[in-house]
Amino acid sequence: MKFEKLNERKVSRDPILGYINIDYKIIWDLLNSKEMQRLRRIHQLGGTFQVFPSAEHSRFTHSLGTYENARRIVEEVKDVKNLLSEEDKVKVMCAALLHDIGHGPFSHAFESIHPVHHEKYSVQIIEKNSEVHQILKRVNPDFPNDVSSIIKKTNENPLLSQIVSSQIDADRMDYLLRDAYFTGTPYGYFDVERILRVMKVTNNIITFKSSGISAIENYVMGRYHMYNQVYYHPTSISYEIIILKFLHRFKELYLNNYKFKQVPSILVPFFINEDLVSNEEHFLLDESTIIHYAKNAMNEDDLILKDLARRLLNRDLFKYKVIDNEEEIEKIKQERIKNGFDPKYYLHQERPVQVVYKKYGRQDMTAINILTPNGEIKELNEVSLVVKALSQSRYTNKGELTVFFPLI
Amino acid sequence: MKFEKLNERKVSRDPILGYINIDYKIIWDLLNSKEMQRLRRIHQLGGTFQVFPSAEHSRFTHSLGTYENARRIVEEVKDVKNLLSEEDKVKVMCAALLHDIGHGPFSHAFESIHPVHHEKYSVQIIEKNSEVHQILKRVNPDFPNDVSSIIKKTNENPLLSQIVSSQIDADRMDYLLRDAYFTGTPYGYFDVERILRVMKVTNNIITFKSSGISAIENYVMGRYHMYNQVYYHPTSISYEIIILKFLHRFKELYLNNYKFKQVPSILVPFFINEDLVSNEEHFLLDESTIIHYAKNAMNEDDLILKDLARRLLNRDLFKYKVIDNEEEIEKIKQERIKNGFDPKYYLHQERPVQVVYKKYGRQDMTAINILTPNGEIKELNEVSLVVKALSQSRYTNKGELTVFFPLI
Amino acid sequence: MKFEKLNERKVSRDPILGYINIDYKIIWDLLNSKEMQRLRRIHQLGGTFQVFPSAEHSRFTHSLGTYENARRIVEEVKDVKNLLSEEDKVKVMCAALLHDIGHGPFSHAFESIHPVHHEKYSVQIIEKNSEVHQILKRVNPDFPNDVSSIIKKTNENPLLSQIVSSQIDADRMDYLLRDAYFTGTPYGYFDVERILRVMKVTNNIITFKSSGISAIENYVMGRYHMYNQVYYHPTSISYEIIILKFLHRFKELYLNNYKFKQVPSILVPFFINEDLVSNEEHFLLDESTIIHYAKNAMNEDDLILKDLARRLLNRDLFKYKVIDNEEEIEKIKQERIKNGFDPKYYLHQERPVQVVYKKYGRQDMTAINILTPNGEIKELNEVSLVVKALSQSRYTNKGELTVFFPLI
Amino acid sequence: MKFEKLNERKVSRDPILGYINIDYKIIWDLLNSKEMQRLRRIHQLGGTFQVFPSAEHSRFTHSLGTYENARRIVEEVKDVKNLLSEEDKVKVMCAALLHDIGHGPFSHAFESIHPVHHEKYSVQIIEKNSEVHQILKRVNPDFPNDVSSIIKKTNENPLLSQIVSSQIDADRMDYLLRDAYFTGTPYGYFDVERILRVMKVTNNIITFKSSGISAIENYVMGRYHMYNQVYYHPTSISYEIIILKFLHRFKELYLNNYKFKQVPSILVPFFINEDLVSNEEHFLLDESTIIHYAKNAMNEDDLILKDLARRLLNRDLFKYKVIDNEEEIEKIKQERIKNGFDPKYYLHQERPVQVVYKKYGRQDMTAINILTPNGEIKELNEVSLVVKALSQSRYTNKGELTVFFPLI
Repeated sequence: MKFEKLNERKVSRDPILGYINIDYKIIWDLLNSKEMQRLRRIHQLGGTFQVFPSAEHSRFTHSLGTYENARRIVEEVKDVKNLLSEEDKVKVMCAALLHDIGHGPFSHAFESIHPVHHEKYSVQIIEKNSEVHQILKRVNPDFPNDVSSIIKKTNENPLLSQIVSSQIDADRMDYLLRDAYFTGTPYGYFDVERILRVMKVTNNIITFKSSGISAIENYVMGRYHMYNQVYYHPTSISYEIIILKFLHRFKELYLNNYKFKQVPSILVPFFINEDLVSNEEHFLLDESTIIHYAKNAMNEDDLILKDLARRLLNRDLFKYKVIDNEEEIEKIKQERIKNGFDPKYYLHQERPVQVVYKKYGRQDMTAINILTPNGEIKELNEVSLVVKALSQSRYTNKGELTVFFPLI
Repeated sequence: MKFEKLNERKVSRDPILGYINIDYKIIWDLLNSKEMQRLRRIHQLGGTFQVFPSAEHSRFTHSLGTYENARRIVEEVKDVKNLLSEEDKVKVMCAALLHDIGHGPFSHAFESIHPVHHEKYSVQIIEKNSEVHQILKRVNPDFPNDVSSIIKKTNENPLLSQIVSSQIDADRMDYLLRDAYFTGTPYGYFDVERILRVMKVTNNIITFKSSGISAIENYVMGRYHMYNQVYYHPTSISYEIIILKFLHRFKELYLNNYKFKQVPSILVPFFINEDLVSNEEHFLLDESTIIHYAKNAMNEDDLILKDLARRLLNRDLFKYKVIDNEEEIEKIKQERIKNGFDPKYYLHQERPVQVVYKKYGRQDMTAINILTPNGEIKELNEVSLVVKALSQSRYTNKGELTVFFPLI
Repeated sequence: MKFEKLNERKVSRDPILGYINIDYKIIWDLLNSKEMQRLRRIHQLGGTFQVFPSAEHSRFTHSLGTYENARRIVEEVKDVKNLLSEEDKVKVMCAALLHDIGHGPFSHAFESIHPVHHEKYSVQIIEKNSEVHQILKRVNPDFPNDVSSIIKKTNENPLLSQIVSSQIDADRMDYLLRDAYFTGTPYGYFDVERILRVMKVTNNIITFKSSGISAIENYVMGRYHMYNQVYYHPTSISYEIIILKFLHRFKELYLNNYKFKQVPSILVPFFINEDLVSNEEHFLLDESTIIHYAKNAMNEDDLILKDLARRLLNRDLFKYKVIDNEEEIEKIKQERIKNGFDPKYYLHQERPVQVVYKKYGRQDMTAINILTPNGEIKELNEVSLVVKALSQSRYTNKGELTVFFPLI
Repeated sequence: MKFEKLNERKVSRDPILGYINIDYKIIWDLLNSKEMQRLRRIHQLGGTFQVFPSAEHSRFTHSLGTYENARRIVEEVKDVKNLLSEEDKVKVMCAALLHDIGHGPFSHAFESIHPVHHEKYSVQIIEKNSEVHQILKRVNPDFPNDVSSIIKKTNENPLLSQIVSSQIDADRMDYLLRDAYFTGTPYGYFDVERILRVMKVTNNIITFKSSGISAIENYVMGRYHMYNQVYYHPTSISYEIIILKFLHRFKELYLNNYKFKQVPSILVPFFINEDLVSNEEHFLLDESTIIHYAKNAMNEDDLILKDLARRLLNRDLFKYKVIDNEEEIEKIKQERIKNGFDPKYYLHQERPVQVVYKKYGRQDMTAINILTPNGEIKELNEVSLVVKALSQSRYTNKGELTVFFPLI
């Protein structure tokens, strides 16, 4: 099978990667599908822009970046380039571009009122009726499922999934740098160039030559800092809690036949389905609708809905406090009740995990494998003192209980 | 009068300026007002993110940046620091923070269906009932008008307006760098640090020591490149034309009593008023509503509205062509008509000006004044060969006529 | 002919280019030749580090950078890659690496006591007995001359010389960025990546697609700023004048049979030859010897030599003044004489040219040629308003007469 | 006492710090002293530029950077600014500028033939006859000793020494960033701005607010990477071994009354004194003389001296091998002997320590103290999981034995 190329490489400026380079028509078509364009309307980092104001980038640009990283891996990393067929390369690039296509707005919050993981939607959009699906099917009838198998990690060649999602992959290498760039945190930097230069394939597993250990240690530390500084920032969690409570109230009112002045019709399918809604219904859901419905909600009579909508629009967030005894929580609760705040909506507890090296060693993920000069494969923590130290300390830190509530 | 300070300086990370530093309570309160928070829902560069995908930053972060530049000018540039009272300094900082508060979504497009300049709204929000107005009035009853006078350039001390808006000012020094950063264009860089170091006040006019000419030439060139490469990019204009035509159709249908399935109620005040709507009505207008209404519009029966909404959501833009004869335009027009496209909505002509040194010399603006070693003040183009050359060429370039239309 | 490759690509870190990549054994051998290593002992910018203290980089790293740019042009620019044979590619890379090999210490100053242009030495080192020559000759007996023909611009294929030295070439693209990086001037930046992407070959001439004009304008402006800010800085000229006068005195004393306590034996061949000295003699000349001889000179009895040596070591530079009448110069001169300063050594006049667009249009150089979308070739100044403006102004600026002399 | 200020702040461009700012005349005078200017002739990183070619920066620019950091600490860190008198501030700035003034060329190698620590020379230059001493004495007769007491850490106020040299100090904050910049290694970056913002003084000890822990962790990691990647690079050690062996041979020949064609007179005082030479003799020693003497040495008859000189000039370095048994070393040794290489000069063993967190906890150094929100002071490793992990692992890693020898 021969894949159609564009007359001329299309390039798109990108502050992280310099350029996004597109040679294949199928990639260009996917990029212009309505499902991909929808990702422009969803913030990559949910509520983080409430703390780091400039973190306003979307899942669309991250998807482009993931694609470009995947393209570089399959076209520039010699071992990968030589091992994969053109078809597999294109599949990997498609999967990288589409890996986040099922995301909804403020996923963390949203998935608590509609408990379907976004990856299931990514798979449904690729496999069932959608513009994306049509484009993929033009290659051949199996192609959509081949692409989704990479995302589901069921492809017969596990190397394909490793490129898109493992420990150091096209996805993570994009978002760590991108999120650092847009938040303005100077701690997330690492040297992608170097990492790609030392990437090899050994026994169909991605390995890294030991001369690149420093770059990889930097990547691990960059990840640590991004989690510590950015991803688990309590103010950003506080904003997502407002969204969560607002959606909860909306759903509860709807299920209790509340008479809305303006029915939140785009949300309704998500309120009434425990399982996946259709691709058409999913397409309509994005952040603009959440925001718009908050404005509508300010005209409703329900005081809780109104107040949560106001808080969401005007950034009147809950305060947070790290607490280590039940009595104090009870006291905060009683004070809220006394002041007319229903604790169901106005008190929230969460235990954000303080990550050092958490994700390594998860069963479904390949470790970071280092290829030593004499050809052995070792796990990163066998050869990096820093990472070894970090991995030993992983069980010692549990996050502290944090309580969120309105000031009175 | 003594201005209340926060217990401790508040800082916000910013990728362009490092940190936004806030010492005054009034600035902190303004920042948290609902009118300022609304600016998070409006892209700084309108449709530019359709060409430079990462240009997703909002008017909110630009407003913070403008404030921070103004703060540095009044607190760190020795001459300004010594000349201004604390009250004037705070006024300047407020005006800088609020200068864009009247902006609507996609202003260029929007102002063609509701022809009120955004600055008029900025003034109305500051001077009339709003959260912003309440906060300013706490200082004293004249304070809101004092702040708006800086924006209107009617303040008795013209130095205050020069800091916020002149040729090299807190506003421009922020947006050129910020837009370059977020688009990923490496051409807009200049050395703010150096410019602030050479900034002086001579006869109540802002001047720059001639040792800083290179930094200023770089600023002028940076501006030139940003206009050429980014601000006047035809694809971004094409997207704004879609918005414009969509809003036109919406307005026309409304004024002709079209029966909407879902009335675009937030837009209605703007359809029926030629002059300013109220601050409450203005507050509700942002990009989320435009996008949400586009989704609603796809359910209406009107084919033009539906099609334009689809184009807007899915980025199915008009093509553009530089054309220099009427016949070709006529031919394009006839072909559109033959294919059922009403040229009122499906044909648009525009002549984007190719700026080299355009803005200099506008009557309402002070030139860039250079302080020579022997104490004379000269205009930049008297001392910079590059700028002289650019300014001489300003009459020679008129933009080319560009025509926008759908492919058939 | 097949060129021997290294077992594995050798890479060297470089802050400007990321990495210097070496695949061919001949390049690796040349790099390790004693004549190349000698370039580590000569500052790239002569006395500029006296003004921009961090400009301490050597001609060696610039030579590596020039090589790497040439390598990228012949291996990554599609048109060049397809047009040239492997032999021509290797030749170009060798010529790029070796183009500055004939440089001596503080060339500007040195060539005024030994008037042989450094390029003649580059050619002699390549063509006659030297380690470099031996390495080149191993390819075949003509190879050294083939390489030097690129430097002399006599190669039958003029494209080869254009790559190394034209208007936008491997040499200039390296030194502008490198000098900006090491001086810390933020004005010299331009986008090499973009320039390489738009580079084409049309009728055996290097052209640039018009979509790259902004990058090229930036390059031209970067050059302008580097000349204005860095290369012609009078303090750096002042230091070179000290070197010049010191060497002049040394030479004069030697030719007049002065009895040195320590004879400056390495300099002697340059004092007594008007034409080229041998490669062995040339090899010994570098900045360490100039500095060491200055320390020796402080023990000699000649007061002028001693004083100039002290000034050189301890940075006791001449002051400078822009002067526009002869009387003032005469007055300065008489005052020096009265204070015992021989004007031959203690008064120097120079007219540094203020470059805007000077180098363009020199007869021996190809202009910057732009390939328009319809296939025409135009000169840059026909299509760039900025450059046109700059080129029109080139005759209007002559440098001002600057006089250098010691304070009394 | 009032310190004389310059008419106008002098500024010097610096790529790391933007500008070096000088307000005090005494700093300006010290900068222009011959002892400071001599530092331009000594590489900051000794032989590192043999591996990272662009690491050609001198101890002079690092001294400027250390001064500028100290200036910022005493003038911008509020606690320090309020606690110290102007006199103490100036003292600290002088000590920072002068802290490395006693360095010789390739200190590591040089101190093995003349075993006097460079700090002793710094103290002697400050306290005894020198230009630097004269300038300091103008303040008052005790001032030189006051300044040297900061370097010796005997000043009655230990805060002064902490600013110049502790765990996070003016010196280290400069060299880590500067060395990263000039080597081109992207791993050494950390956020000085942030560190200065969280710096406090508690009980006359420098502390850091816990909100800055990420920046400090980054600093610690940056240091780790610089040691691992740059400072202990075996190729750079190999070059210093050549220098060491060359100087050893020179010294041995001299002490054995070898008849030199050209006596290395500047080195002689260092050969014959076990203790400090005079400041005048010290002044003459710099890298230019080492290099020049290598050129002279190539004319001597001693084969070992000649060969080592050639290796030094032409970068014909020793190979290195990590070895873990004595037999292999013995085998290498016998092979060298068989080939005529005297193992005294042609075999060298070294065990470069692999630093993770080595320097912390040294008795003479203050730990990094963190000020927690409730006012307690904790050691960094009590509050940073990463640093705790690193510090636990410090005893586990001893460097591997590395042997250096010529190829045969």
